[in-house]
Amino acid sequence: MSVDFSSDNITGAAPEMLAAIGAANGATAHSYGDDAWTKRLTEVAQEVFETELAIYPVATGTAANALALAVLCPPYGGVFCHETAHIEKDECGAPEFFSAGAKLITVPGAEGKFTAPALQAAHQAAAARGVHNVRPSAVSLSQATEWGTVYTPDEVSAITAAGRARGLRTHMDGARFGNALVRLGCAPADVTWRAGVDMLSLGATKNGAIAAEAVVIFDPQLAQEFEYRRKRAGQLFSKMRFASAQLAAFLEDGLWLRWAANANAMAARLAAGLAGVPGVRLAAPVQANELFVVMPAALIAKLEAAGFGFYRWPVPSMAANEDAIRLVTNWQTKPDEVDIFLGALRRDAGAQNG
Amino acid sequence: MSVDFSSDNITGAAPEMLAAIGAANGATAHSYGDDAWTKRLTEVAQEVFETELAIYPVATGTAANALALAVLCPPYGGVFCHETAHIEKDECGAPEFFSAGAKLITVPGAEGKFTAPALQAAHQAAAARGVHNVRPSAVSLSQATEWGTVYTPDEVSAITAAGRARGLRTHMDGARFGNALVRLGCAPADVTWRAGVDMLSLGATKNGAIAAEAVVIFDPQLAQEFEYRRKRAGQLFSKMRFASAQLAAFLEDGLWLRWAANANAMAARLAAGLAGVPGVRLAAPVQANELFVVMPAALIAKLEAAGFGFYRWPVPSMAANEDAIRLVTNWQTKPDEVDIFLGALRRDAGAQNG
Amino acid sequence: MSVDFSSDNITGAAPEMLAAIGAANGATAHSYGDDAWTKRLTEVAQEVFETELAIYPVATGTAANALALAVLCPPYGGVFCHETAHIEKDECGAPEFFSAGAKLITVPGAEGKFTAPALQAAHQAAAARGVHNVRPSAVSLSQATEWGTVYTPDEVSAITAAGRARGLRTHMDGARFGNALVRLGCAPADVTWRAGVDMLSLGATKNGAIAAEAVVIFDPQLAQEFEYRRKRAGQLFSKMRFASAQLAAFLEDGLWLRWAANANAMAARLAAGLAGVPGVRLAAPVQANELFVVMPAALIAKLEAAGFGFYRWPVPSMAANEDAIRLVTNWQTKPDEVDIFLGALRRDAGAQNG
Amino acid sequence: MSVDFSSDNITGAAPEMLAAIGAANGATAHSYGDDAWTKRLTEVAQEVFETELAIYPVATGTAANALALAVLCPPYGGVFCHETAHIEKDECGAPEFFSAGAKLITVPGAEGKFTAPALQAAHQAAAARGVHNVRPSAVSLSQATEWGTVYTPDEVSAITAAGRARGLRTHMDGARFGNALVRLGCAPADVTWRAGVDMLSLGATKNGAIAAEAVVIFDPQLAQEFEYRRKRAGQLFSKMRFASAQLAAFLEDGLWLRWAANANAMAARLAAGLAGVPGVRLAAPVQANELFVVMPAALIAKLEAAGFGFYRWPVPSMAANEDAIRLVTNWQTKPDEVDIFLGALRRDAGAQNG
Repeated sequence: MSVDFSSDNITGAAPEMLAAIGAANGATAHSYGDDAWTKRLTEVAQEVFETELAIYPVATGTAANALALAVLCPPYGGVFCHETAHIEKDECGAPEFFSAGAKLITVPGAEGKFTAPALQAAHQAAAARGVHNVRPSAVSLSQATEWGTVYTPDEVSAITAAGRARGLRTHMDGARFGNALVRLGCAPADVTWRAGVDMLSLGATKNGAIAAEAVVIFDPQLAQEFEYRRKRAGQLFSKMRFASAQLAAFLEDGLWLRWAANANAMAARLAAGLAGVPGVRLAAPVQANELFVVMPAALIAKLEAAGFGFYRWPVPSMAANEDAIRLVTNWQTKPDEVDIFLGALRRDAGAQNG
Repeated sequence: MSVDFSSDNITGAAPEMLAAIGAANGATAHSYGDDAWTKRLTEVAQEVFETELAIYPVATGTAANALALAVLCPPYGGVFCHETAHIEKDECGAPEFFSAGAKLITVPGAEGKFTAPALQAAHQAAAARGVHNVRPSAVSLSQATEWGTVYTPDEVSAITAAGRARGLRTHMDGARFGNALVRLGCAPADVTWRAGVDMLSLGATKNGAIAAEAVVIFDPQLAQEFEYRRKRAGQLFSKMRFASAQLAAFLEDGLWLRWAANANAMAARLAAGLAGVPGVRLAAPVQANELFVVMPAALIAKLEAAGFGFYRWPVPSMAANEDAIRLVTNWQTKPDEVDIFLGALRRDAGAQNG
Repeated sequence: MSVDFSSDNITGAAPEMLAAIGAANGATAHSYGDDAWTKRLTEVAQEVFETELAIYPVATGTAANALALAVLCPPYGGVFCHETAHIEKDECGAPEFFSAGAKLITVPGAEGKFTAPALQAAHQAAAARGVHNVRPSAVSLSQATEWGTVYTPDEVSAITAAGRARGLRTHMDGARFGNALVRLGCAPADVTWRAGVDMLSLGATKNGAIAAEAVVIFDPQLAQEFEYRRKRAGQLFSKMRFASAQLAAFLEDGLWLRWAANANAMAARLAAGLAGVPGVRLAAPVQANELFVVMPAALIAKLEAAGFGFYRWPVPSMAANEDAIRLVTNWQTKPDEVDIFLGALRRDAGAQNG
Repeated sequence: MSVDFSSDNITGAAPEMLAAIGAANGATAHSYGDDAWTKRLTEVAQEVFETELAIYPVATGTAANALALAVLCPPYGGVFCHETAHIEKDECGAPEFFSAGAKLITVPGAEGKFTAPALQAAHQAAAARGVHNVRPSAVSLSQATEWGTVYTPDEVSAITAAGRARGLRTHMDGARFGNALVRLGCAPADVTWRAGVDMLSLGATKNGAIAAEAVVIFDPQLAQEFEYRRKRAGQLFSKMRFASAQLAAFLEDGLWLRWAANANAMAARLAAGLAGVPGVRLAAPVQANELFVVMPAALIAKLEAAGFGFYRWPVPSMAANEDAIRLVTNWQTKPDEVDIFLGALRRDAGAQNG
């Protein structure tokens, strides 16, 4: 058995997603989203989020984030985000491209999260320069964060309130939104629109779907602009029904929470198992499905040599002879995989310390 | 039986495409195209096109076209295309967006095609203004065209040669490339790189796939830039294998030609049947899977009332009491559907003239 | 004496403009427009246009036009303009650049002008495609036009009303606005905001200044966005006072009308003189300071050989052995220059016909 | 006498610049740079820089920087610059706008400068992510820096060599290039193309001119692209001669060095005078015409109350009861102004400490 914790996008598609595609096939259907499955997706999303909203499938999380930010931020504007945010580090400048040159303004903060006061400080510094700097326009939060941590509804509310008071709208990057929800145990609405979020990138690809992400817009006034931008970006599928059918099933039957719960549980199992291993420590609390683990570099090399899949992920708190790795669990991860990894780790660590 | 000729994107997915997705599912695979199916796609495409090349799946034809043009044309450049080109009329400014503001310069021409001399004339007018106009940089040909007509290899060669002599590179919009190939009966290479084409948008979605288009790059020097632009545009699928598997099967087993052949045959059957109907005439020769049919407006109204699916599509050659419609056949169209439509048309036309 | 009618931008600066620069020099002044001369410019412009407004100096007419359009039209929008408009033909894609990819949609019309019905037709065709085309967003009128013709206040009102009814805002390219005003004999307000114009590019460079154009914004809500875009475009002068001082003097003392009146009068003198010359005819009425003159190609060659300055400017109405030229008069043109040109023309034409 | 050290752009124009404008006035001249003054400017610049080059006047330093970077960095690229660089902090996202979304990647470093090793580290971090990050493409150095410090030719060479080895081209922001040159006492070539710089933004506005900046291109292959981008950005002056004449005089007669020398000397006089004042210290060495001075906040308030002009400019090294100010001297600053300021400072500081 190959044990691979390198990412949650290495998994295949869940049988339920293939079944949804199959069920949407058959007769002809109007193209570009004027079909029954897309209509159903909107209804389901409105039920799940308990509000009027618009929801639009797109091909990737990068597209979802960048399209949303382009709606919330003008070309001459700035978007506040955490210094480790995916939009800042991993999207090849997609937000800058889609927005026609808006600037990401990074906000520092521990364990992948920033606070309302940190946002205020960053805003003050940016706004003080008037037209010599970009106009502060939006905030982007990641939920769960790049560090596998989760914002509480109160934390989100505090940030969106600080932003709103300064004319900023809020985007949430929810590539792992399901994992955050499972952790919080709250309603989807509680940590989105009720907490002041205007637009949400809702990820399904990492959590069982094929290539199905969605942008959820809680302010219907933003929908028309989004529709033009989506088409213009080559993100309007002619055969929309196949994406919509996946997303509708994903939300409707609670699949997203069930799958995210497995990923989170497996991450917790890993964390519990790591706890007792000498020389091994977590760089951040485990709140969703990612672990950042500091250990002796020699130990990492042994795990690599044994064929385990993961990425090295240096963190500031490492000592000279240490390195760190990122472990990501997913909707398919099995307890056996976790236990095999932990067994090898304990063995290698014991040998090292023995 | 509902008979719908409104577009070839109203169809579902072919069973072979669903099977390809299913076969690619299962174990984990590296993300972002570092997988066996994507490798296989490149091999298959190289066999089919008989040359070294790079091939990249993307989500839509609009994305394929706009990404290709952004590689071939700088922001301060111009792209020559037919005045009815899809990139000019139907993509919401995607080429302008992806290229950061390049300008489409339209070239006139009968039946959806332009000629090398027409390109030369348009180039001369544009280039004469120096930096006061955009720099002529690229040509985009549609194959088959928006009028359902097809360029011969000689016609393509003449255009690309005229362009090359003026520093222009050539893109081909092949949303219906299979239909053109079936018509021409030539090798894919003959009408692309051997005829001077640098990049091809290769469509599969209209011809049986789910959401699988590809950009084929015949000049390997352009590939690295393309890869950055693709990521930046939110068009780099994490679970690439599902798109690659469809496209590989599509090309490998000759599915694309078989399906396109059906669409073309059904278009020919429609054309043959229309020939004898009084008051009805074709606005352009039928060379692929689209027909543009002029007839009395009252007759169109009857067909609409009877529930047939098609779009009104005004053409210059209409008389005052006439209108025109577009009929598109597809990989699934059945002879019965054609015959039902023709039967109704003959009946209504006879009543009209009787 | 070298007689040059090639353009009105070949002239130097008027002594009054140099004097204004000199008068603004001396003590230190706050930068970026926070100075007495810029304040005075706004006051003067408000008096001249009889309304609240914002006015911003920029370096070129291209910058004025493109910045204004970027405010009026989103990246996914379309701007209707005449098919010969300067923004379409002579600005190297600046509107597309500043707007991040908006599309110019050309409207046909005789003698450089289009009508409200022609705008309506173009709008209908564009809007019918929904998100598959850009969103119709703005209209741009040239006053005077590229053909040297002038829109009456009623014509402008009809166009802006047709636009407003369809959600379009109106920009006026007034690179030769003074020449149009002199022709119309109306108040500046009558043909701008009172006629429904939202933003005006007001040219001074062709009419005596050094490098001083301005954007006049009649809707104060648009001013803040403009200020960010201006800075971002490198069009916010640190030593603003030198541009503002020119523009204030230009407007305050009626210089702009006096100078434009000279240019128009000299154009009229040319037109009158041409009237009697055999084989020579005007391609458009002379309403401002430009003439488009059709004549035998051999005659043009003689004028060129004699050293007169002008551009060949082909027009549709030419016969096979004819060509056309553009003659532009300016604020400095003297009757003698006109008469020398006319004398040579008559002599050459006589020889030709004799 | 009002003493104002707030910036070097508060000054007027030098008489020599007005004289140059006057001398260029008079007869007609071809527009857009096809004139004798622009030709002369190129010759002069080639003499001064001892090499073939192209030089293009533009309206502002922001335009110079952003146009240069757009030539050196593709839309999907990254530009390394100091974390306090003007392009990062003070240009409202102009580099992002002109480049169509390239990303500035900040490099840390003391006193406004970064080193070759710091560049290497930043490059390594950025490049490691492949297409998930922007492609490292260019470096931008400020000379003199935002902290008023100056890179030696060896420091510049080390940085450009490190960049070149990684495929990066180098831009130098020389808004205060003359001040740096005076400090270094080297030839202009020594710290630009001989040290590996590809493009230079050469400032004149802060140093006596009206609105005259220039881009100097040492690699002639980049010139054509620049010319299109300049036009497209609304930075191609029709009456180019008036900018060219200023810049030619500025360089030809050594005015730029004489004026910069005055500014530097006055800064040194300020620094010398500050040295003995209790509670007052420099935050960075004074190498050009800017001083960053830490002092008790109460002392700053007194200087403000006395009407002296300067900006508060917080620096990291301040204590709780301190603040810092920026003092900028200029080509016109007189010893008396320095002495008045120093006198007041000593008096206030004495009272404070007395």
